[in-house]
Amino acid sequence: MKRIERTGTIIKILSESPGKLFSLNFFTNLFGAAKSTVSEDIAICKKIVENLGDGEIVTVAGAAGGVKYIPRVSERVIKEFQTYLSDRLNEPSRVLTGGFLFTSDIMFDPHVTKQAGKIFATRFMDLNADYVVTIETKGIALALMAAEALNLSLVVMRREGKISEGSTLSINYISGSSGKIQKMSVSKKSLVPGTKAIIIDDFMRGGGSACGMAEMLSELDVETVGIGVLIATREPEKKLVDNYYPILYLDNHDNPHKSIFVSPNKVMP
Amino acid sequence: MKRIERTGTIIKILSESPGKLFSLNFFTNLFGAAKSTVSEDIAICKKIVENLGDGEIVTVAGAAGGVKYIPRVSERVIKEFQTYLSDRLNEPSRVLTGGFLFTSDIMFDPHVTKQAGKIFATRFMDLNADYVVTIETKGIALALMAAEALNLSLVVMRREGKISEGSTLSINYISGSSGKIQKMSVSKKSLVPGTKAIIIDDFMRGGGSACGMAEMLSELDVETVGIGVLIATREPEKKLVDNYYPILYLDNHDNPHKSIFVSPNKVMP
Repeated sequence: MKRIERTGTIIKILSESPGKLFSLNFFTNLFGAAKSTVSEDIAICKKIVENLGDGEIVTVAGAAGGVKYIPRVSERVIKEFQTYLSDRLNEPSRVLTGGFLFTSDIMFDPHVTKQAGKIFATRFMDLNADYVVTIETKGIALALMAAEALNLSLVVMRREGKISEGSTLSINYISGSSGKIQKMSVSKKSLVPGTKAIIIDDFMRGGGSACGMAEMLSELDVETVGIGVLIATREPEKKLVDNYYPILYLDNHDNPHKSIFVSPNKVMP
Repeated sequence: MKRIERTGTIIKILSESPGKLFSLNFFTNLFGAAKSTVSEDIAICKKIVENLGDGEIVTVAGAAGGVKYIPRVSERVIKEFQTYLSDRLNEPSRVLTGGFLFTSDIMFDPHVTKQAGKIFATRFMDLNADYVVTIETKGIALALMAAEALNLSLVVMRREGKISEGSTLSINYISGSSGKIQKMSVSKKSLVPGTKAIIIDDFMRGGGSACGMAEMLSELDVETVGIGVLIATREPEKKLVDNYYPILYLDNHDNPHKSIFVSPNKVMP
C-alpha cells in the first residue's frame, strides 16, 4: 500500500471511532509496514486533521499507548453552528399555543445532534468521565452523540420503571419550573459505583431534571462532573444546579404572543 | 496543498456526512485546485474507502451532481458484528426475573447503534425514503444512527401527546404480544404528506408497535417502505407486519429459567 492510501485509511478509521485508542501495531499489521513508516504516516494525518478545525489526532505514549482522534471544535465552527441553529429556532412557525417552542425536529436531527455532541465533547473531554447520562426522551439523541464523541457509555433514565430494566432506583422530584411532581428511575445494572458522569439534556429551565439526575447518580455513588444542555432559559438566572453549559440561551417572554428569542452562549466551551 | 493532504481531507469530510452530496466545486474552492486534479484525488479516495469494506464513494453525474459517501457494510463485517452482539446478549447475567432480557446498555451503546445503523442503511439505502421513524424509548439510538447513515430526518413518536409537540395525531392499538392497549402519538408538524418512511425499532415480538406506527404514518399519507429491528423473536412466526428485517433473532424459551438464545439473521441485508 502506498503512503497516500495508508494516510487516507488511518484518517477514516480514527475519525469514525472518536476517543478510541489504536496501537501502532494495529496499523503496522494492517499495512504490513514498519513502525517508522506508520509514525511518519500519522504525522501527516495529524496535520490534515488539524487544518480542518474540528478535531485532532493525539499520540498516547508508553506500552499501552497509540493514537486516537479527539473531536475538538474550533471557535469559528461553534459560532457558525450557533448562528445556524438560532436562526432555525427563531422561525415564527415554531411558536406553539402557550408560547412553547417546537424543537423535536431539531433535537432528533442527526446533523445538529452530532455537531452539538462534538461541542459537548470539547467542553467535557478533560474530565475523565465514565458515562453520559440523560433522561428520556428529547435529550437522547444529543446525549448519544456526546457519548460517541467522548467514547463513553450512555445511560438513559426512564420516567417509569420498566420490567426490562431489572431492579431500579427511583425518585420523585419537583420540577423546578412547573412545580409538578415528576418521577425518574434508573436500572442499577447500568452504573458502576465510584465512577463519574456527565449529564446531557435538551432543555433547562429551573434545573429540576438535572438536579434530580445528579441526586440519583449520587445515591448510586456516581459523581456528576459536568452538565450540558442545548438550550437554557436566561430566567430564572438561579437554577437548581450550578455549573451547567448551554450551547444556546432562550430569552424570557412574559407575553405568550411575543416572539421567542434564541441566542448563542458567547462563552466558548 | 499536496495530493496526500487533499485525499485525507476529502475522506474525512465525506465519511463524516454520509449521504450528503458535495459538488466538485466545493473541493476545487476548498483546495484552490483544478477540477481535473480533484477528480483524480477522488478516484484515489474511492479506492481507499472500497478497501475498508464498510462503504463507498459514489459519483453523481450532471449539473447538480457531485460525490457522496454511502455506508455499505460488507458481509464479513456484518457477520463479525452479529457474532459479537449475540455473544454479549447471551451473557447469563442479562436474564431478568420472568425471563426478560436486559438490553438497555446495548440499545444505547454508541458503537453498537452506529454499526447497526449502517447495516440498516445498507438494507434500505435504495428505497429513497424521506424519514426514519421510531417510537420512544429504546429504539431511538438505533433510529438516529440509521437516519445519520441514510442522511434522513428522524421522527420519534411518543407514548403520550406532549404540549411541546403542537397538534398531534394519536391512536390506541393492541400490543401483538401482551394484548394490552397502548397509545402512540405523533406531531403533525413533523411529517409531510406524500412521503416515504423507514421504521426502526429495538425489538419485535408480535409486531404491534411497528404495525401501529405504519397505521399512523398511513393516516398522515406517509408510506412505510421498510421496517428494521435489532432483535426479532422467532415466535410468533406470523407477525402483524410482513417484510421486516431483523439483525438478530431471539429463540423462544417456554421455561423462564432456560437460557436465552440470540443468534444472527443469516439473510444479509
